[in-house]
Amino acid sequence: MRLATLKDGTKDGRLVVVSPDGSACAPAPVKTLQEALEDWDAVAPQLAAASNFPDPLDASQILAPLPRAWQWLDGSVYASHGALMDKVIGVDKEPVPWPLMYQGVSNKFYGPGEDVVMADEALGIDFEGEFGVIVDEVPMGVSLEQAGKHIRLVVQINDWSLRALAGPEMKTGFGWVQAKPPCSMAPFAVTPDELGDAWEDFQPNMNLAVFWNDAKFGNAHGKAMGHGFDALVAHAARTRSLVAGTVIGSGTVSNANFREVGSSCIAERRGIEIVDEGAARTDFMKYGDRVRMEARAADGRTPFGAIDQKVVRP
Amino acid sequence: MRLATLKDGTKDGRLVVVSPDGSACAPAPVKTLQEALEDWDAVAPQLAAASNFPDPLDASQILAPLPRAWQWLDGSVYASHGALMDKVIGVDKEPVPWPLMYQGVSNKFYGPGEDVVMADEALGIDFEGEFGVIVDEVPMGVSLEQAGKHIRLVVQINDWSLRALAGPEMKTGFGWVQAKPPCSMAPFAVTPDELGDAWEDFQPNMNLAVFWNDAKFGNAHGKAMGHGFDALVAHAARTRSLVAGTVIGSGTVSNANFREVGSSCIAERRGIEIVDEGAARTDFMKYGDRVRMEARAADGRTPFGAIDQKVVRP
Repeated sequence: MRLATLKDGTKDGRLVVVSPDGSACAPAPVKTLQEALEDWDAVAPQLAAASNFPDPLDASQILAPLPRAWQWLDGSVYASHGALMDKVIGVDKEPVPWPLMYQGVSNKFYGPGEDVVMADEALGIDFEGEFGVIVDEVPMGVSLEQAGKHIRLVVQINDWSLRALAGPEMKTGFGWVQAKPPCSMAPFAVTPDELGDAWEDFQPNMNLAVFWNDAKFGNAHGKAMGHGFDALVAHAARTRSLVAGTVIGSGTVSNANFREVGSSCIAERRGIEIVDEGAARTDFMKYGDRVRMEARAADGRTPFGAIDQKVVRP
Repeated sequence: MRLATLKDGTKDGRLVVVSPDGSACAPAPVKTLQEALEDWDAVAPQLAAASNFPDPLDASQILAPLPRAWQWLDGSVYASHGALMDKVIGVDKEPVPWPLMYQGVSNKFYGPGEDVVMADEALGIDFEGEFGVIVDEVPMGVSLEQAGKHIRLVVQINDWSLRALAGPEMKTGFGWVQAKPPCSMAPFAVTPDELGDAWEDFQPNMNLAVFWNDAKFGNAHGKAMGHGFDALVAHAARTRSLVAGTVIGSGTVSNANFREVGSSCIAERRGIEIVDEGAARTDFMKYGDRVRMEARAADGRTPFGAIDQKVVRP
């Protein structure tokens, strides 16, 4: 099943079940996605039972599926991206056998069409196309096998970044605060079973099509994670239980043949330019620029819908 | 005024106003501290008006003043601590002119007497005595002057740490996830005006007395921050607005004469031992160990009450 959250004047919005063709929706038996996740085993069957979709789905009313979350943990498990970024940022760090992860701002996720307010155009405004999962409550020390079972929903994310601040913050060892303003989510949160063969080994088996101001920018394939989402959940839960509604991201989707398939963020393209040509040619985003991201399965399905947003000044 | 949150079976508890002598309390006009912070200008005068405290305050019923928060950002602005830790961890990083800060788990703050569940005794269980502030909503790009005005409450925090994981995570540049399980808060959140001269230049002008299994461990003075809390708030809000109820920490309280006054965490004492004697003699905490922390003003007041907790196995 696919779920969406609609504007209703509250911070958490109103949960709906989306029709198979994405054009209509049915009311949910609980008010918010957070409530559903806190009691998933009881609520999910009720959500899945929806067969009548009486209300037309108005794209302008769609918020992020989870408009705010208690926790957002973002990984970085596409090796081709990580290695290139370290090189460009000038960070000389030893590879680690576990998934890289930091905690970011979670009290706001932008909706898929919402304007994105950036503090300063000079800070290197960049998008990062990612996949993510949302879990129900996960006990501390969960096994890898059990971790996978707590993945209740899959989502598509734009992890906005400010590159001028990212390198300096990373070098402190403390991770990112200023370099990572709130993220965006595509319209629909999708259960793994609904994805079918577009979800394999706890990885998204689909492309992420990225367009910057309508020009094709990247089309990397999702199934190239160095650690699957089950491993990301288990890593996150090693020393803390994960609150229901925790969102865990993959990091920028990237493939080793990025020169052919393109990138899911500008920094990666700039990195390629630096390596290949000695200097970056591509500039970061300007106010008024748009980015569109849409995951596409091999059979043409677009399970999450599209993120399509404009960057604006404060 | 001083505020506390009492158990009532919900995740956010029930807000009360504490009597001047700390022995009794009055019901608040809103249910939770989060609600109060979201409408502080209207609610604070009502809280401050309490003059009759009909209910005895039962210490066993006290939760963290904010049992869960949408955002926890922890600084590290006591220079004597940071410099020693870098040396001991083996991180060779350039000093930066801005306050170091990372985002940590915020969906749970332990109450002052609650047992603290740690995944594994072998991970180097450590306490970190800190001060913190809680803000109402702060706009993105707030000025330093305005930032200080958003500090509505001051709190005392134990930022639990797992040292065996801290160094490796720090070296990735991504900051800490596994090394930082949930923090604890002392019983009372206190308005800056209530602190009087124990709050000066946006810094706590008081000692933090730390006892490990009843043995005196440290008594560092709070007013040695390299950046005041106003600067920490402004730093946090440079590229994001801060949601009401954001908690911002100082990092481990530390003084340059730590050999005389002691430390607020074990890692710092071990660092001193490594520097002075070539090896650490002091071990980390064991299951069953307790830590007590209590800030004390020059006039003997203990505005936040005491954290007194035991570390337990899962």
